[in-house]
Amino acid sequence: MVNIGICGYGNLGKAVEKLSTLNKNLNLVAIFSRRQTTASVPVLPIACAPQYKDKIDIMIMCGGSDRDLAEQSPLFAQNFNIIDTFDTHARISEHKNTVDSACKANGTCAIVSCGWDPGIFSIFRTIFSQIFDATTCFWGKGISLGHTNAIKQIDGVKNAKQFTIPLKKAKKHAFLGKSINFPLHKRVCYVTSNSHNKRQNSQIEKAIKSLPNYFLGQPTKVKFVSEKTLLKKYSSFAHCGEIISTSNTLNKKFSAHFILKMQSNPLFTAKIILAYVPALLNLKQNNKAGAFTPLEIPPCYLTSDPISSAITKFC
Amino acid sequence: MVNIGICGYGNLGKAVEKLSTLNKNLNLVAIFSRRQTTASVPVLPIACAPQYKDKIDIMIMCGGSDRDLAEQSPLFAQNFNIIDTFDTHARISEHKNTVDSACKANGTCAIVSCGWDPGIFSIFRTIFSQIFDATTCFWGKGISLGHTNAIKQIDGVKNAKQFTIPLKKAKKHAFLGKSINFPLHKRVCYVTSNSHNKRQNSQIEKAIKSLPNYFLGQPTKVKFVSEKTLLKKYSSFAHCGEIISTSNTLNKKFSAHFILKMQSNPLFTAKIILAYVPALLNLKQNNKAGAFTPLEIPPCYLTSDPISSAITKFC
Repeated sequence: MVNIGICGYGNLGKAVEKLSTLNKNLNLVAIFSRRQTTASVPVLPIACAPQYKDKIDIMIMCGGSDRDLAEQSPLFAQNFNIIDTFDTHARISEHKNTVDSACKANGTCAIVSCGWDPGIFSIFRTIFSQIFDATTCFWGKGISLGHTNAIKQIDGVKNAKQFTIPLKKAKKHAFLGKSINFPLHKRVCYVTSNSHNKRQNSQIEKAIKSLPNYFLGQPTKVKFVSEKTLLKKYSSFAHCGEIISTSNTLNKKFSAHFILKMQSNPLFTAKIILAYVPALLNLKQNNKAGAFTPLEIPPCYLTSDPISSAITKFC
Repeated sequence: MVNIGICGYGNLGKAVEKLSTLNKNLNLVAIFSRRQTTASVPVLPIACAPQYKDKIDIMIMCGGSDRDLAEQSPLFAQNFNIIDTFDTHARISEHKNTVDSACKANGTCAIVSCGWDPGIFSIFRTIFSQIFDATTCFWGKGISLGHTNAIKQIDGVKNAKQFTIPLKKAKKHAFLGKSINFPLHKRVCYVTSNSHNKRQNSQIEKAIKSLPNYFLGQPTKVKFVSEKTLLKKYSSFAHCGEIISTSNTLNKKFSAHFILKMQSNPLFTAKIILAYVPALLNLKQNNKAGAFTPLEIPPCYLTSDPISSAITKFC
């Protein structure tokens, strides 16, 4: 039985909570949150976590990347073995190093950036990139939290949801192994604004479309809807991810196509986190203090079988 | 520059030879074979290999599993770091242990059962099995060497090719997450016989269909063709592999679908072997004498980048 704790009680934290009740090898001890709320186990202020040092084997870090995990993961790694889903791709190496130092100083173990992307997609990208000439990743149709939050920062925006949708033409190019010098995705933004003033809304639209790093230069549609419609029609947590790899070697063609479909993005992320619980225990058992991304973990560590059984089952 | 040797000069050995000329980091030093033949580099008797101990960094073992690799891999591991494609699934653990002992006694390193299946499919099976409720693998359409050889042992058979073809109904069940209590594949056998006697051919057909472990209880078609037709129409090395995983968790559906298409099975296997060359060098550099299946190798070992660059590129 593995005693786990949850830090952060948003969509991901709630998904981990629900999933842990289905897994007879896991015992959820406590949830740590900024919010005062009730759950299936005690919900405590984050400051109380160190008191649970000896009661929790693995702390599942369920906060947002930049706002929460960048600070919380190194802090929690001082007292706990942790798994987090840090997903700001450009900053993963830096984040890993910070958590690694905290782990090594305290003899703990961490798996960072564990989810579907980054996570298992990172593993596939690594392997495919070594075998194939070209590898392209597509995300969606699904809500992008980062882009949604960027829209919400704009003056006059009340609420928003941004859906990322792969462009058919880009997929076709990827399958043909053609180089792609245009955006891979289109972005559809559903926005509720504070006004029904057309001029004001068209200013919001312009502001969205010119946001650098998010929408500028990308095919973007902005649709104004009512708050009711936004919550009813555009709140699905469904998501999709796809990897297309191709090679043309010595006049022979090769392709790999991976398609992941999820009716709930946070629930699937929670499933992956819990699949990595045995990996963290295996790292721990091999005395490997430090932080690891899924790239650095032998796939057999995900099973709790001895290696000979894992080979017989899966090779 | 990595100096490699090839042991076994069949389809796979020839594919590794051709590919190595395309890779500027590889230098093919010699080929070791039972046959006397010529190639782009010296072809020497297998008994001469030990003399190349200090001239070859990695020996690529390209023989058949039971006939060659079971003996040759442990033998060659005494003098060389090796990569092999041992693919008799039920005996991989045993084979690994034999090679492992030879490696540990001689300070060498081996990657065994490296290919698409076993190999990268083993990695995907391991990961998907920990995340999803059900995972099913399909092979084909493509020639199965094991089944082809089994047909060739039958009295009166001159030559044969056995194509494995997934059953549509089985794939449909796999996508729906239904349990499958029927064969996943049908088997189409193209046979040339020594006679044009219908009665004798029907005896051959009966013998094929009742071969235990190969065809008995499996949907099998036997077609008699001329040697010319067999070689012209049914000698393609194209192959295909597919993995379908599904889950229904807390009323949400999840699926993963991986499709691999190859116009040449031996060439793709050679591509994977060469993709694992940096992994073998990384194992060696980390002083890990012994034998490893791809399951036991961290995915980042496939890149020759330092880990921070690998994370930045692929995470």
